[in-house]
Amino acid sequence: MPDVDTHLTAAHIAYLATQRLGRLATVDSEGRPQNNPVGFHVDAELGTIDIGGRDMGRSRKFRNVQANPNVALVVDDIFTLRPWKVRCVEIRGTAEALVDQTPGRPRFSAEILRIHPTRIISFGLDNVGAGESPESAGVQG
Amino acid sequence: MPDVDTHLTAAHIAYLATQRLGRLATVDSEGRPQNNPVGFHVDAELGTIDIGGRDMGRSRKFRNVQANPNVALVVDDIFTLRPWKVRCVEIRGTAEALVDQTPGRPRFSAEILRIHPTRIISFGLDNVGAGESPESAGVQG
Repeated sequence: MPDVDTHLTAAHIAYLATQRLGRLATVDSEGRPQNNPVGFHVDAELGTIDIGGRDMGRSRKFRNVQANPNVALVVDDIFTLRPWKVRCVEIRGTAEALVDQTPGRPRFSAEILRIHPTRIISFGLDNVGAGESPESAGVQG
Repeated sequence: MPDVDTHLTAAHIAYLATQRLGRLATVDSEGRPQNNPVGFHVDAELGTIDIGGRDMGRSRKFRNVQANPNVALVVDDIFTLRPWKVRCVEIRGTAEALVDQTPGRPRFSAEILRIHPTRIISFGLDNVGAGESPESAGVQG
Protein backbone atom coordinates (compact mmCIF):
# COMPACT_ATOMS: atom_id res chain seq x y z
CA MET A 1 0.00 0.00 0.00
CA PRO A 2 1.26 3.52 -0.67
CA ASP A 3 2.15 5.92 2.11
CA VAL A 4 0.13 9.12 2.39
CA ASP A 5 1.52 12.28 3.98
CA THR A 6 0.52 15.92 4.12
CA HIS A 7 4.06 17.31 3.96
CA LEU A 8 7.49 16.40 2.60
CA THR A 9 9.31 13.85 4.77
CA ALA A 10 13.01 13.02 4.92
CA ALA A 11 12.32 9.89 2.85
CA HIS A 12 10.61 11.95 0.12
CA ILE A 13 13.45 14.45 0.07
CA ALA A 14 16.12 11.73 -0.11
CA TYR A 15 14.37 10.10 -3.04
CA LEU A 16 13.67 13.35 -4.89
CA ALA A 17 17.40 14.13 -4.70
CA THR A 18 18.11 11.04 -6.82
CA GLN A 19 15.91 12.12 -9.73
CA ARG A 20 16.33 14.79 -12.39
CA LEU A 21 12.86 15.00 -13.90
CA GLY A 22 9.36 15.19 -12.56
CA ARG A 23 6.13 15.45 -14.51
CA LEU A 24 3.88 18.35 -13.68
CA ALA A 25 0.14 18.17 -14.31
CA THR A 26 -1.69 21.47 -14.51
CA VAL A 27 -5.28 22.13 -15.53
CA ASP A 28 -6.65 24.82 -17.82
CA SER A 29 -9.78 26.86 -17.24
CA GLU A 30 -11.85 24.27 -19.14
CA GLY A 31 -10.73 21.39 -16.89
CA ARG A 32 -8.27 19.94 -19.42
CA PRO A 33 -4.93 18.73 -18.02
CA GLN A 34 -1.50 19.02 -19.52
CA ASN A 35 1.51 17.05 -18.33
CA ASN A 36 5.11 18.18 -18.75
CA PRO A 37 8.56 16.91 -17.83
CA VAL A 38 10.17 19.48 -15.55
CA GLY A 39 13.21 19.93 -13.38
CA PHE A 40 12.45 20.80 -9.78
CA HIS A 41 14.10 22.18 -6.68
CA VAL A 42 13.10 21.06 -3.20
CA ASP A 43 13.22 23.66 -0.42
CA ALA A 44 13.44 21.37 2.60
CA GLU A 45 13.08 24.27 5.02
CA LEU A 46 9.92 25.71 3.48
CA GLY A 47 8.58 22.27 2.53
CA THR A 48 7.92 23.54 -0.98
CA ILE A 49 9.05 22.61 -4.47
CA ASP A 50 10.05 25.21 -7.05
CA ILE A 51 9.83 24.71 -10.80
CA GLY A 52 11.60 27.12 -13.10
CA GLY A 53 12.33 27.22 -16.78
CA ARG A 54 13.66 29.30 -19.62
CA ASP A 55 10.33 30.78 -20.59
CA MET A 56 8.21 29.91 -17.59
CA GLY A 57 6.26 33.17 -17.57
CA ARG A 58 5.08 32.63 -21.13
CA SER A 59 4.31 28.94 -20.72
CA ARG A 60 0.88 27.40 -20.78
CA LYS A 61 1.55 25.70 -17.43
CA PHE A 62 2.15 29.11 -15.84
CA ARG A 63 -1.13 30.43 -17.25
CA ASN A 64 -2.90 27.26 -16.15
CA VAL A 65 -1.74 27.79 -12.56
CA GLN A 66 -2.91 31.39 -12.69
CA ALA A 67 -6.38 30.12 -13.66
CA ASN A 68 -6.40 26.98 -11.47
CA PRO A 69 -3.74 26.56 -8.76
CA ASN A 70 -4.26 22.82 -8.33
CA VAL A 71 -1.29 20.76 -9.54
CA ALA A 72 0.16 17.27 -9.25
CA LEU A 73 3.90 16.62 -9.63
CA VAL A 74 4.95 12.99 -9.94
CA VAL A 75 8.54 11.77 -9.66
CA ASP A 76 9.12 8.10 -10.26
CA ASP A 77 11.50 5.58 -11.75
CA ILE A 78 11.79 1.89 -12.42
CA PHE A 79 14.17 0.66 -9.74
CA THR A 80 14.39 -2.88 -11.08
CA LEU A 81 12.67 -4.53 -14.04
CA ARG A 82 12.90 -8.04 -12.57
CA PRO A 83 11.38 -8.07 -10.07
CA TRP A 84 9.22 -5.14 -11.21
CA LYS A 85 9.82 -2.37 -8.66
CA VAL A 86 8.72 1.20 -9.23
CA ARG A 87 9.53 4.04 -6.86
CA CYS A 88 7.14 6.99 -6.81
CA VAL A 89 6.37 10.23 -5.03
CA GLU A 90 3.22 12.03 -6.19
CA ILE A 91 2.85 15.52 -4.77
CA ARG A 92 -0.60 17.04 -4.95
CA GLY A 93 -1.18 20.57 -3.84
CA THR A 94 -1.51 24.14 -4.99
CA ALA A 95 1.06 26.21 -6.81
CA GLU A 96 1.84 29.89 -6.69
CA ALA A 97 2.77 31.56 -9.98
CA LEU A 98 5.58 33.84 -8.75
CA VAL A 99 7.22 36.62 -10.73
CA ASP A 100 10.40 38.67 -10.21
CA GLN A 101 12.29 35.78 -8.61
CA THR A 102 16.02 35.22 -8.77
CA PRO A 103 16.42 32.55 -11.46
CA GLY A 104 17.64 29.22 -10.08
CA ARG A 105 19.87 28.64 -13.11
CA PRO A 106 21.50 30.70 -15.84
CA ARG A 107 19.03 31.53 -18.62
CA PHE A 108 16.01 30.61 -16.50
CA SER A 109 13.33 33.26 -16.45
CA ALA A 110 12.27 35.23 -13.37
CA GLU A 111 8.97 33.36 -12.99
CA ILE A 112 8.63 30.17 -11.00
CA LEU A 113 5.91 27.85 -9.85
CA ARG A 114 6.10 27.13 -6.12
CA ILE A 115 4.23 24.02 -5.06
CA HIS A 116 2.75 23.79 -1.58
CA PRO A 117 2.02 20.10 -0.97
CA THR A 118 -1.27 19.09 0.59
CA ARG A 119 -1.23 15.34 -0.06
CA ILE A 120 1.81 13.22 -0.92
CA ILE A 121 1.43 9.61 -2.03
CA SER A 122 4.57 7.48 -2.18
CA PHE A 123 5.70 3.89 -2.56
CA GLY A 124 8.90 1.94 -3.09
CA LEU A 125 11.04 4.41 -1.14
CA ASP A 126 12.61 1.70 1.02
CA ASN A 127 14.71 1.06 -2.09
CA VAL A 128 16.43 4.46 -2.06
CA GLY A 129 20.13 3.64 -1.84
CA ALA A 130 22.78 5.52 0.09
CA GLY A 131 24.95 7.65 -2.14
CA GLU A 132 22.56 7.40 -5.08
CA SER A 133 22.60 10.51 -7.24
CA PRO A 134 21.11 11.64 -10.54
CA GLU A 135 24.50 11.03 -12.13
CA SER A 136 24.52 7.41 -10.98
CA ALA A 137 20.92 6.79 -11.98
CA GLY A 138 20.19 4.85 -15.13
CA VAL A 139 20.70 7.49 -17.77
CA GLN A 140 22.49 7.05 -21.08
CA GLY A 141 25.42 9.17 -22.12
CA MET B 1 10.44 23.83 -31.10
CA PRO B 2 8.17 20.89 -30.35
CA ASP B 3 6.15 19.12 -33.03
CA VAL B 4 2.38 19.21 -32.73
CA ASP B 5 0.15 16.54 -34.25
CA THR B 6 -3.47 15.51 -33.92
CA HIS B 7 -2.84 11.77 -34.17
CA LEU B 8 -0.15 9.21 -33.42
CA THR B 9 2.60 9.15 -36.03
CA ALA B 10 5.16 6.44 -36.80
CA ALA B 11 7.77 8.48 -34.92
CA HIS B 12 5.57 8.64 -31.81
CA ILE B 13 4.88 4.92 -31.98
CA ALA B 14 8.57 4.06 -32.42
CA TYR B 15 9.50 6.14 -29.41
CA LEU B 16 6.66 4.88 -27.21
CA ALA B 17 7.86 1.32 -27.89
CA THR B 18 11.16 2.15 -26.16
CA GLN B 19 9.56 3.22 -22.87
CA ARG B 20 7.88 1.23 -20.09
CA LEU B 21 6.19 3.97 -18.07
CA GLY B 22 4.07 6.97 -18.86
CA ARG B 23 2.52 9.41 -16.43
CA LEU B 24 -1.22 9.90 -16.68
CA ALA B 25 -2.84 13.12 -15.52
CA THR B 26 -6.55 12.97 -14.77
CA VAL B 27 -8.76 15.60 -13.17
CA ASP B 28 -11.40 15.17 -10.49
CA SER B 29 -14.80 16.85 -10.42
CA GLU B 30 -13.33 19.79 -8.46
CA GLY B 31 -10.66 20.51 -11.09
CA ARG B 32 -7.81 18.95 -9.09
CA PRO B 33 -5.33 16.83 -11.06
CA GLN B 34 -3.61 13.65 -10.07
CA ASN B 35 -0.60 12.19 -11.86
CA ASN B 36 0.30 8.51 -11.87
CA PRO B 37 2.99 6.31 -13.40
CA VAL B 38 1.27 3.80 -15.67
CA GLY B 39 2.10 1.16 -18.21
CA PHE B 40 0.44 1.66 -21.58
CA HIS B 41 -0.38 -0.21 -24.76
CA VAL B 42 -0.44 1.52 -28.14
CA ASP B 43 -3.01 0.31 -30.67
CA ALA B 44 -1.40 1.57 -33.86
CA GLU B 45 -4.42 0.58 -35.95
CA LEU B 46 -7.01 2.41 -33.85
CA GLY B 47 -4.61 5.24 -33.01
CA THR B 48 -5.49 4.85 -29.34
CA ILE B 49 -3.60 4.06 -26.15
CA ASP B 50 -4.93 1.65 -23.53
CA ILE B 51 -4.06 1.79 -19.86
CA GLY B 52 -4.88 -1.16 -17.64
CA GLY B 53 -4.04 -2.14 -14.11
CA ARG B 54 -4.73 -4.57 -11.32
CA ASP B 55 -7.51 -2.58 -9.74
CA MET B 56 -8.29 -0.08 -12.47
CA GLY B 57 -12.05 -0.10 -11.91
CA ARG B 58 -11.66 0.88 -8.28
CA SER B 59 -8.96 3.48 -8.89
CA ARG B 60 -9.37 7.19 -8.46
CA LYS B 61 -8.08 7.77 -12.00
CA PHE B 62 -10.92 5.64 -13.36
CA ARG B 63 -13.49 7.62 -11.38
CA ASN B 64 -11.83 10.86 -12.47
CA VAL B 65 -12.24 9.90 -16.14
CA GLN B 66 -15.88 9.02 -15.53
CA ALA B 67 -16.38 12.56 -14.18
CA ASN B 68 -14.05 14.38 -16.59
CA PRO B 69 -12.76 12.55 -19.69
CA ASN B 70 -9.91 14.97 -20.35
CA VAL B 71 -6.48 13.40 -19.79
CA ALA B 72 -2.82 13.99 -20.58
CA LEU B 73 -0.33 11.13 -20.83
CA VAL B 74 3.34 12.07 -20.97
CA VAL B 75 6.12 9.67 -21.89
CA ASP B 76 9.65 11.02 -21.69
CA ASP B 77 13.21 10.17 -20.79
CA ILE B 78 16.59 11.79 -20.47
CA PHE B 79 18.45 10.62 -23.57
CA THR B 80 21.77 12.16 -22.58
CA LEU B 81 22.74 14.22 -19.55
CA ARG B 82 25.62 15.99 -21.33
CA PRO B 83 24.51 17.50 -23.55
CA TRP B 84 21.11 17.71 -21.87
CA LYS B 85 18.68 15.99 -24.25
CA VAL B 86 15.16 15.02 -23.22
CA ARG B 87 12.80 13.05 -25.44
CA CYS B 88 9.09 13.57 -24.90
CA VAL B 89 5.66 12.71 -26.26
CA GLU B 90 2.72 14.35 -24.49
CA ILE B 91 -0.64 12.99 -25.54
CA ARG B 92 -3.64 15.12 -24.73
CA GLY B 93 -7.12 13.89 -25.42
CA THR B 94 -10.14 12.22 -23.94
CA ALA B 95 -10.34 8.81 -22.34
CA GLU B 96 -13.10 6.24 -22.28
CA ALA B 97 -13.56 4.32 -19.03
CA LEU B 98 -14.28 0.86 -20.46
CA VAL B 99 -15.53 -2.15 -18.50
CA ASP B 100 -15.74 -5.87 -19.30
CA GLN B 101 -12.57 -5.85 -21.41
CA THR B 102 -10.20 -8.76 -21.86
CA PRO B 103 -7.32 -7.94 -19.50
CA GLY B 104 -4.09 -7.14 -21.30
CA ARG B 105 -2.02 -9.00 -18.72
CA PRO B 106 -2.54 -11.67 -16.09
CA ARG B 107 -4.07 -10.23 -12.91
CA PHE B 108 -5.13 -7.01 -14.63
CA SER B 109 -8.74 -6.10 -14.07
CA ALA B 110 -11.42 -5.94 -16.76
CA GLU B 111 -11.54 -2.14 -16.82
CA ILE B 112 -9.28 -0.03 -19.02
CA LEU B 113 -8.85 3.59 -19.94
CA ARG B 114 -8.70 4.11 -23.71
CA ILE B 115 -7.16 7.41 -24.73
CA HIS B 116 -8.22 9.08 -27.96
CA PRO B 117 -5.53 11.65 -28.76
CA THR B 118 -6.55 15.10 -29.91
CA ARG B 119 -3.24 16.95 -29.58
CA ILE B 120 0.22 15.39 -29.37
CA ILE B 121 3.27 17.48 -28.53
CA SER B 122 6.69 15.90 -29.02
CA PHE B 123 10.36 16.76 -29.11
CA GLY B 124 13.71 15.00 -29.23
CA LEU B 125 12.42 12.07 -31.26
CA ASP B 126 15.19 12.33 -33.84
CA ASN B 127 17.25 10.60 -31.15
CA VAL B 128 15.20 7.38 -31.17
CA GLY B 129 17.75 4.68 -31.97
CA ALA B 130 17.21 1.59 -34.09
CA GLY B 131 16.83 -1.53 -31.99
CA GLU B 132 16.27 0.38 -28.79
CA SER B 133 13.94 -1.40 -26.42
CA PRO B 134 12.73 -1.03 -22.84
CA GLU B 135 15.21 -3.73 -21.83
CA SER B 136 18.12 -1.75 -23.28
CA ALA B 137 16.96 1.53 -21.75
CA GLY B 138 18.70 2.86 -18.73
CA VAL B 139 17.09 0.79 -16.01
CA GLN B 140 18.84 -0.83 -13.07
CA GLY B 141 18.63 -4.52 -12.33
